[in-house]
Parts: sequence; structure tokens; C-alpha cells
Amino acid sequence: MKRPFPPTSYTPDPAFAHRVASTTVTVLDAGGAPLADTEVTVEQTRHAFQFGNIGFDFIPLANGETRLHPDDDLETFGGASLGALEHLADLWLDVFNTATLPFYWGRFEPRRGAPQTQRLRRTAEWFRDRGVALKGHPLVWHTVQPSWLLDLPVDEVERAQRERIRRDVADFAGLIDTWDAINEAVIMPVFTNGDNGITRLAHHIGRLATVRLAFEEARSTNPRATLLLNDFDMSTAYECLIEGVLEAGIQVDVLGLQSHMHQGYWGEEKTLAILERFSRYGLPIHFTESTLLSGHVMPEEIVDLNDYRIPDWPSTPEGEARQADEVERHYRTLLSHPAVRNITYWGLSDDGMWLGAPGGFVRKDGTPKPSYEVLRGLVKGEWWLAPTTMRTDGVGRVTVQGWLGDYAVRAPGGSAAFTLEQGAPTVDVRLG
Amino acid sequence: MKRPFPPTSYTPDPAFAHRVASTTVTVLDAGGAPLADTEVTVEQTRHAFQFGNIGFDFIPLANGETRLHPDDDLETFGGASLGALEHLADLWLDVFNTATLPFYWGRFEPRRGAPQTQRLRRTAEWFRDRGVALKGHPLVWHTVQPSWLLDLPVDEVERAQRERIRRDVADFAGLIDTWDAINEAVIMPVFTNGDNGITRLAHHIGRLATVRLAFEEARSTNPRATLLLNDFDMSTAYECLIEGVLEAGIQVDVLGLQSHMHQGYWGEEKTLAILERFSRYGLPIHFTESTLLSGHVMPEEIVDLNDYRIPDWPSTPEGEARQADEVERHYRTLLSHPAVRNITYWGLSDDGMWLGAPGGFVRKDGTPKPSYEVLRGLVKGEWWLAPTTMRTDGVGRVTVQGWLGDYAVRAPGGSAAFTLEQGAPTVDVRLG
Repeated sequence: MKRPFPPTSYTPDPAFAHRVASTTVTVLDAGGAPLADTEVTVEQTRHAFQFGNIGFDFIPLANGETRLHPDDDLETFGGASLGALEHLADLWLDVFNTATLPFYWGRFEPRRGAPQTQRLRRTAEWFRDRGVALKGHPLVWHTVQPSWLLDLPVDEVERAQRERIRRDVADFAGLIDTWDAINEAVIMPVFTNGDNGITRLAHHIGRLATVRLAFEEARSTNPRATLLLNDFDMSTAYECLIEGVLEAGIQVDVLGLQSHMHQGYWGEEKTLAILERFSRYGLPIHFTESTLLSGHVMPEEIVDLNDYRIPDWPSTPEGEARQADEVERHYRTLLSHPAVRNITYWGLSDDGMWLGAPGGFVRKDGTPKPSYEVLRGLVKGEWWLAPTTMRTDGVGRVTVQGWLGDYAVRAPGGSAAFTLEQGAPTVDVRLG
Repeated sequence: MKRPFPPTSYTPDPAFAHRVASTTVTVLDAGGAPLADTEVTVEQTRHAFQFGNIGFDFIPLANGETRLHPDDDLETFGGASLGALEHLADLWLDVFNTATLPFYWGRFEPRRGAPQTQRLRRTAEWFRDRGVALKGHPLVWHTVQPSWLLDLPVDEVERAQRERIRRDVADFAGLIDTWDAINEAVIMPVFTNGDNGITRLAHHIGRLATVRLAFEEARSTNPRATLLLNDFDMSTAYECLIEGVLEAGIQVDVLGLQSHMHQGYWGEEKTLAILERFSRYGLPIHFTESTLLSGHVMPEEIVDLNDYRIPDWPSTPEGEARQADEVERHYRTLLSHPAVRNITYWGLSDDGMWLGAPGGFVRKDGTPKPSYEVLRGLVKGEWWLAPTTMRTDGVGRVTVQGWLGDYAVRAPGGSAAFTLEQGAPTVDVRLG
């Protein structure tokens, strides 16, 4: 009998044994001889784990724009004030190594045939030049869609959607090789909170045909791409969708789970139960959209988060203490689970944050909240190897123990890079 | 591009135009000559629409049992007191034409190798002899499962499940040709309210492989069978499951929607919205399990209805008036939708009703509630052609207008049967 997925089971480890490695590094001089009995400095330069955040705010900075809305009728993607961007960029780059960029079709191509390709490319290059990996979000979704789709017959919508995927995936190949191929397909065909062409398409051809077109067009355009199925629905509905997608033979590289916790932190138990359910398909998991508030939480009776709009949603001292605690618990819980490869937080500053919520790591005035310090303390502290002086032994060896990722070793004769991986007990590095 | 289902859209009609027909009937005498200018009596004998109810209570009656629990350790299926069964049978047969019989594996075969085949066969024959069509419920489910499955390895569970399907579908072929092939597959692999072998199987092989084994074994055993996918989950989860099942090429004949409304009547708007969502796959719909209470409703915070157990749950005069109104609205709403082919109510008497709920049409003392009179007034009144005297014209014709179903015509020279169908404007009947 055909089995579309191998039943997979993980044991979460709060001590993170699956995140670290110990490697014997043999340091060679430029000539290839072991650098014996010498002081060297070893330091981590990058996490293998993807600590992500959205990069929406930095589009104007990367493009040298001097007005927040260069076109009067064109909403910008991020909302942070221009004057704060250099400072926010420093804070961003000190913690995060992976950026999600906005490809919402309705904003990316509000006028048919005039996509914002250049603007997004400059932004992607700005991040790439700073060592940041990139993801595009999303290729297919029913929200923030172009109004010009509304009047098209459904087969024209499908054709336009396919063309858009091929165009954008091709335009950014090599620069953006990770994509949310489709977002929120569970609700897509029965979404009622706003007319759009994509709901009409998904209602007509069904979820699986819609998922298939997203993955097939993206895959055939960029075979090296990492493609995600992404959803906010953590119920059995998403399980059923995933099982249908896998049964249909659609190749999904990563399952994306949103976790906008505007209505309160899930807690460890719920988070681990969700991870147990969604990790059993044997696919890597990205927590693609995490939010935790430092103010009051949204009432639980709100079903679509977009329906909650208030004029002012303040960050409070008590809220900031709670958020810092919840951020630490959230990251520790997710990293304890071996299937999780990425946590992407949904914003840096409360200035311009989605829904006006105080969900950032930074206050509107630009000062970091306790949550920022907590997260930085993990990512660049507890889970990080700061520059450490070691002495090689008689045959040039040091033992490096740390979180999986990239490292540098510096010695009087030069420096070299190596990667700490599991299953690689020894590595030779040659100073240059 | 492959499309697993034709997008289908219906317009509900509260006037039931899709449920009725008008046919010109030419009455021929035994010799084949038109019976001109003669008084004949025409009456309906059966609805094409399936007005169903469970037949669980009548197992002891059909088997001539004199104790409610013939085996001390064996729970019986229905719970109505033996002395009331003849009376209840009269009430049942006066309204319903389709019975669901219980094949809960844990009760049907509590000791491996000793199934209750004879007992269920006699019950099925009892109904058949009274003109009642039958359905078996269910072939695969995770609740009420044999304890002897618990210790089997998962591939043994799968083998036993397949064998059980083949055995029971074969044993009842020709007598029971409609089956709930699988029940509640949405929650099946993540069900936590009781250990059982089937959840373990579904968790291991996935929902679609479990659905496939149910349909494939039943179909191959009885190719004429009508096989249902049945669920209580009316959320997008069931839509996703259905789309996966259809995409996987599993042939589903009917979608079964449960509607145990212990927490309150859904109302017309919600019911029609559900019908719109589930009818778009182009499959017939059965409302397989309907319950409406004539007492207080269950608190909305209860998630699994089985968790609500109280010592006494009375039927009240106000509750009975409300139930009668809701029963009428429920049946009118469902019958207004062309995709609905069956409504099966989940019990007749409050005596022995599931969860002890006052959901019957009959009180514990055996007297009919207002809901019974209301439903009978529709099924055998407003929607029924009682014996009606008509006069044939000069070439032996009468025009019969009524609900789709079976009819009889009686005349001095004998009687004959015919069926009222849409698209059949004329029919000849020969008295015999």
C-alpha cells in the first residue's frame, strides 16, 4: 500500500543536544603544517539555525527613498519611520540572520504589468550583502490581492497567477531561493472577509489543485528553491490538507506554521502538542510568523485578527516583562524540537507593526524592550561562542564545542573559517 | 490540469420543486386496454427521499429476546425497554423508511471471532420485511473498538480491520448495501479520548490510507454498495479531507454530515452555509445523524459530547414545543437543498437515547412528543399523497402530482404500482 509519508516521531530536548556539536579542529598554517602549541582565537560567526524576522521596513532604506510613500496611491510594505531605519537595521542585524521579504501580489503589482521588482531586488541585495538569507512571502494568497484580478474570468486568474509565480521566482533566483509557495490554503476557498480573485480560483478548482499550481510553477522555474506550505490554521484542517498534498505527490520542502499570538502566548504544552502533530510527516518545520505582545492581548472572540483595530495599542511595563518571558519560553520550546529549523518573528519595532500591535522587540521610540535583550542574550550569548582564546596542542588541535553554524579561527599567521556540524568529529582548517 | 471534482452549485428551493413531479398515468386493464372514464384511487406508498432513523432498539424485538442484556458482559446496542418495542415499532414504521443498524466493532465482535452476525441479520431482515431500506454504521471508526485490538501491532490491526470489513460487507450483501465506510476520519489519528487500535493505525498510516482501505475493501467485496464518508466535523478540516480523498481517486458515493445538535439547533443560515460548502463537490449528501433536544441544551464549552453525563435530563413542555419547531425547520431546510437525499434522525424514544438526552420524538413513557406529530404531518401529510379518488379520461388517463416515490393505483379491475420520477411525464400501468 502506498504510504505518502513516513510516520516520524521526535523527542524534544530542552538541553538542545541536537543543536550543538563538538569538533576537533586541526589548525594548519598557510603552508599546510600544523600550528602546534599556539594561541588562537575561535569565534562563532553565524547560526545554522535560522533566526528570522521580516525585512519589510528596510525597503526604503535599501532603496535610498526619502519619502515613506513614494507613490501616493501605493502603500509601502513596512511602516517604520524613515529616520529610525539605520538604527533599527543595526538592532535587526545583531540578532537575525534570515529575512522574509513581502511579495503580496496586490502591493507588489498594483498596476498590472508594473511589478516592484527593482525595489525588492535592491532590498534583497541589501540583506544579502549583510550576510542575511532571504525568503519571499507569499507566491499565492487570497489576501492583499490586486483589484485587477476581480474582473477576470477564473481561468484568466489562474493563468495570471501562474505567470506571476514564474516571473517572480525567475527574477529573484539566486537571490531569493526560499518561498512561501502558498499561504493559508485551508481557508482560501471559503474566505469571506474580502472579495478577491484567488478565493474564486481556489473555490473553483479546489485546494489541492491550487497548492499544486503554486509548487509546480515555482519548482519548475527554480528547481533549487526551498518551497513552503504555510498556514495559520493549527487544527486538524491543516493536517488534512497536508496529508492530501503529500498523497497528491506534491513535493513540499518545509511546513510553515504561523504563530501570531495576539490572543495570548500558547504555552509550552500547546506548542509541543502542535509540533508533535505536524512533525509526524517527516518534514522540516519553520515557525514562519511569530508575534508576542508587550501590551494587552486581543479578545479571544476575534476570529480574523484583521478585524481588531484600535486607535492606540500601548506597550506597557508589565506587558514588556511578560513578553520577554514568553519570548524566551517560545524560542526555547521551539528550539528544543529537532524538526524546527527556522523561527521568524513578525516585526522588529512597534512603529509600523501589523495591526498596530505592540508586538515588536523595540518600542516606537526606538529603544529595545526587555524581549530584545532576552532574545539577543540567547542568540548571541547563551547559544553563541564569543571570541575565545584557546591553545593548540602539539599537533595543532583545539576542540571547539558550540552551536551548529559557522566559525572563524584567528591566529598570528592569518584566519580561517569552518562549519560546526553534527557527525563531523574532525576538521582541518588552513590559515590564509 | 487534473480536477478531482466538478465545481457544483445548487439553489435551495423552499417550495421543493426538485422533490415533486407531475405525471400523466394511463391506466390499462388486465387485458391492456385503456380504462376510460372510470373512478380509480391513487395513493403514495413510499417516499423516494430517505427518511431515516436508527434501528438499534429493535434488535431484541427482531430476535425475540426476553432480556435486554442477553450476555451479562455485552452491552446491547439500543436501550429502549423491551415491553415498549412493539409500540415503538409502530411509531417508527409510520414515519421512517430507512434504518441505520449498529456495526460498532467493539460491540459487534467483543470476543475476536464471535461476531453478532446472526443477531444483526435477523434485525436487518425484520426491517426489510417491513419495507425499510438499511444502512450499516460504521465499518471503520476509532470509538467503541474491541479491546483485543489494543495489544496488536499496527500491521495486525490493519489486517484485522480489512478482514472485518470484507467479512461483514460480504455477510450482509443484498440485505445491507449501504455503509458508512469510515466515520470521523478527521479526528481519527489524533483522537485522545480513549485508547484504541484504530487511532494508532490512522496515526501511523495517515488519514487517506485509512479512508482508502475502508472504501477499497468494502467496494471490492460488494461493488453494488453505496459507500459513505461520514463526519461530525463541519469545519474546513472535513473539506480538506474530502478534497484529499477525491484527489487520491477514492470513489466516495455519498458525503455523510452528522448534525447532533445537543448544543442547540444550527438554524437555517448555518445549515444552508454548510450545505453550500459540502455540496460543491457534486456528491449526494446524507444528514446521517441528526439530534434535536426537547430539554435544556448541552453547555457550549463541551467539546466531545460524550463528556457530558448527567443523571437525569428531562424533556420539558417548553423544550418539546421548541423541538417541534426546530424539527420542522431542520427538515424543511434540508429538503429545500437538492443535494440532500437522506435525513437520519438519531433515535425515536428518550428511553435509552444516546447520552440520556431528551432527543427522541417519543417520551420515555411511550407517548409521542409534538415533534413526532409535526414530522409525521410532513412525511405523511403535507408531503404525501393520501388515497385520492380520480376519474380517468376518455383514453384512461389521470394526472398524478406528488412527491417523488412509489404510488399505487386501484380500480375495480385490480391494482398496479408506479413510480413518480422527474423527467418521466407519462407512464402506463396495467392493473393486475
